Amino acid sequence: MNYILKNENALYYECGYSCDNAIYLRCGLEAYFITDSRYTLEAKEKIISAQVVASRDIIDTARKLIKKSKLKKLLFDPKEWSVQAFEKLSEKSSVTFKQMPDFSKKKRMIKSSEELLILEQAAKYGKKAFDALAKEISKHGFGEDEYLLTYTAKSILSDFGSFDLSFDPIVALNANAAKPHALPTESRLSRGDLLLVDAGLKYERYCSDRTRTVFAEDNFLFETHQNFTDKKIQKAYDAVLKAHDSAIEKCKSGMKAKKVDAIAREVIEKAGFGSYFVHSTGHGVGLDIHELPLISSRSEAIIEDGMVFTIEPGIYIPDEFGIRIEDMVAMVKGRGVVL
Amino acid sequence: MNYILKNENALYYECGYSCDNAIYLRCGLEAYFITDSRYTLEAKEKIISAQVVASRDIIDTARKLIKKSKLKKLLFDPKEWSVQAFEKLSEKSSVTFKQMPDFSKKKRMIKSSEELLILEQAAKYGKKAFDALAKEISKHGFGEDEYLLTYTAKSILSDFGSFDLSFDPIVALNANAAKPHALPTESRLSRGDLLLVDAGLKYERYCSDRTRTVFAEDNFLFETHQNFTDKKIQKAYDAVLKAHDSAIEKCKSGMKAKKVDAIAREVIEKAGFGSYFVHSTGHGVGLDIHELPLISSRSEAIIEDGMVFTIEPGIYIPDEFGIRIEDMVAMVKGRGVVL
Repeated sequence: MNYILKNENALYYECGYSCDNAIYLRCGLEAYFITDSRYTLEAKEKIISAQVVASRDIIDTARKLIKKSKLKKLLFDPKEWSVQAFEKLSEKSSVTFKQMPDFSKKKRMIKSSEELLILEQAAKYGKKAFDALAKEISKHGFGEDEYLLTYTAKSILSDFGSFDLSFDPIVALNANAAKPHALPTESRLSRGDLLLVDAGLKYERYCSDRTRTVFAEDNFLFETHQNFTDKKIQKAYDAVLKAHDSAIEKCKSGMKAKKVDAIAREVIEKAGFGSYFVHSTGHGVGLDIHELPLISSRSEAIIEDGMVFTIEPGIYIPDEFGIRIEDMVAMVKGRGVVL
Repeated sequence: MNYILKNENALYYECGYSCDNAIYLRCGLEAYFITDSRYTLEAKEKIISAQVVASRDIIDTARKLIKKSKLKKLLFDPKEWSVQAFEKLSEKSSVTFKQMPDFSKKKRMIKSSEELLILEQAAKYGKKAFDALAKEISKHGFGEDEYLLTYTAKSILSDFGSFDLSFDPIVALNANAAKPHALPTESRLSRGDLLLVDAGLKYERYCSDRTRTVFAEDNFLFETHQNFTDKKIQKAYDAVLKAHDSAIEKCKSGMKAKKVDAIAREVIEKAGFGSYFVHSTGHGVGLDIHELPLISSRSEAIIEDGMVFTIEPGIYIPDEFGIRIEDMVAMVKGRGVVL
């Protein structure tokens, strides 16, 4: 199979190294890692499965290597290439460029045992950070606004700069949590508030991803057992938790991803909150925070051993509150195991 | 002029609002801001110059609006659109899509007086953060590694979460500073080290950008006057500073950008370090950290009043050290003014 890749995580997956200006080209048994002189030294040290080619113009070099190779067909991901970059690559080329959306993500869908161990470790560090964050917010967070709470989450999740983050953490209070991708506001945390935290870190480049929604009181914990004083919130919370638990318990290898979504969705619908569960149940996680399979109502993907994905049902009632509970699940021997 | 935009900063420039899933379409006197239901409420509150259109599939909606408008020609930036997104947009379309690379960045090259004031303020906050960072590193930074120093820079530049950053700060010691885009390592700061910091923050979405290289001793300051004990470093430092000062002093409206680059480059060449100045002298700054004009040896752009760009010559000697001094310059009444 002949293919050309540009995305950093796709490159890292192929050869254990990446940088922000590189192309990976696979032509039969030959493989090339094309980059500029800033990175060639390091690339040569780390890459054994491809020939490192130094270039001032990596697209032009790729074009020439393709021409020289006399390939007939080359796969590429039309999401990875801008119109401009692809036009330059394919200019006056006799090769047939065949579109393969999510080419690398499809290759990465089933994780190796080594990847599973790394993802497990990432999730463990992620959980540890949530535990530390609960203590910190409990001690110093009351009275602070979402900006500072988000900053605190970044500090603790990154272990003060040691880890990269999977994404900018979401720390949202009460009605602001009703936005699935809430941005921080000047709302300040009071005792008795609903507090939602969605955050993750990268360990050896692999992402963790976790969400907890809690009743913020002294010494609160990011546990799934929560007692809200507001009855409507508690009812919604219980529905989300049950949806989360059911989907994890009942997902099986061989099942369609849309079935997993349906298990979670049904619980929330039965509780009367169906119209407030406005997103998919989950997504694959790996080098990218959003990978395959998608756990949605339309996803025909078949769940298989070695897949790692989130289960994150939610209920979002505009101007009132939002609830989401999320864990990472790995499929092992036919069943879902929480990482 | 009819055009279609997708980049967040391009959208913000057109209508004072943006979000991560939106398209701006300008057809003659009509303008549309197409986004999904998560953002329509906020968009309607903030946008007065365009009609907000709610959509579950923004590209498809744009395609239909283009069809309905009976346009003949539509400009787009081939760098902004992936092959996949553009194919979907242009499918079965009778309009002629005309490529205009950097369409929005070209529009944004000359800053308005309001933008100049914001950029001036961003630069002021950036400078203030450098001052605070010097104090913090002087007090607690010796003995710490580049990861923690980078984290400290992030904390202080963001004012503990109040500002977004223009980019991930670069904090590099000695030989690591020889990489223009150095990533943090486990090297620890000692008294007498060379310390390079390149960092910026965003104020009202506009970026600041600043680099200082200093001799790290107790109570050091991020000033341009520095005394290194190593003679070779001092010689290189003096050349970079002179190149920086000359380019700022001598740049004039009406001059070609490549002439500004040549002024800086000549100083460094004369000092015998020409082959170690491995990048361009500067770049425009605004909503994006890298805008136009490019101040490089090939740039035919004409410097004009209202442009804002960096002047950042450097000398990078592999395995030894790297030096860069950077300021933001605004062209006012024909001359360069440091922001």
